[in-house]
Amino acid sequence: MSLEKDAKTGKFLEAAKACHNICRLHGVHLLINDRIDVALACDADGVHIGQSDMPVAVVRTLLGPEKIIGVSCKTPEQAQQAWVDGADYIGCGGVYPTNTKVNNLTVGLEGLKTVCLASKLPVVAIGGISVSNARSVMELGVPNLKGVAVVSAMFDTESILVETQKLHAVLMETRAVVK
Amino acid sequence: MSLEKDAKTGKFLEAAKACHNICRLHGVHLLINDRIDVALACDADGVHIGQSDMPVAVVRTLLGPEKIIGVSCKTPEQAQQAWVDGADYIGCGGVYPTNTKVNNLTVGLEGLKTVCLASKLPVVAIGGISVSNARSVMELGVPNLKGVAVVSAMFDTESILVETQKLHAVLMETRAVVK
Repeated sequence: MSLEKDAKTGKFLEAAKACHNICRLHGVHLLINDRIDVALACDADGVHIGQSDMPVAVVRTLLGPEKIIGVSCKTPEQAQQAWVDGADYIGCGGVYPTNTKVNNLTVGLEGLKTVCLASKLPVVAIGGISVSNARSVMELGVPNLKGVAVVSAMFDTESILVETQKLHAVLMETRAVVK
Repeated sequence: MSLEKDAKTGKFLEAAKACHNICRLHGVHLLINDRIDVALACDADGVHIGQSDMPVAVVRTLLGPEKIIGVSCKTPEQAQQAWVDGADYIGCGGVYPTNTKVNNLTVGLEGLKTVCLASKLPVVAIGGISVSNARSVMELGVPNLKGVAVVSAMFDTESILVETQKLHAVLMETRAVVK
């Protein structure tokens, strides 16, 4: 739900509920960006939070033990802390430059690898990843790198369906699709 | 906490906690604007929500029966709905034009009176209210008009303390201070 960052809470919740209904039909988890209240209100499967959002330990208290919590991490220290605080996975990036997020530090493939090696949690790579470079990311060869997160690669394209199918095919080939 | 609308969640929560500590020392309730998650995380006394925020009934479910829920209402219909949905009070305005909120419809003293007469809940007047016009508002003569909410009148002044004391004096004179 990263596109909803500036939405009013009411509209955000409506969009979240609509997404959740679609996700349920396909057995897919829905995680809400930042807004724990919206996640609670639509009974989402979890949240994704950044380093400037609510602390992970507080989020865990609000959501209980069952919900999924993901945390954006750029460094080994942040990855370690996310694990200590009770996160379920981390997102690491930007792997490549991206227009989706302004002022976002690019960590590169080396930065991603460093964080993966330091992390006790599964890692999802994010930032400028598309069909053209997803293979390079997934072939880094670190076992806890479990997948990629994309925004532009799907939504800044002519056909979301076609691009998603292409990306899915690449990920299937690398046998590292997020489970 | 209306000044925190654009703050990142982490900073918002820190500010809310700091405010809550000060409020507790003085026996004053802290209500958080819009963000139910921040209210939950700092155990605030309640929230204030707008018509574009999360629905009151959902907020009541998330916060439980004890917390205070206030709702911004501009019409008798909204006031009625807020009561049905389990709100504790309503805020009505803008009574006068204000720079605090952009694109905010001014309802005037007549609009405020109409809403007060239709409301089963206590009403707090808001919007462009200051020392110079608070008396006109409080002397509308509707028993459930219980007080005023101010932002600019305190914070766009040289001395917040002095302006607050002046406003408090006016409200005490009208014997309609919020309890």
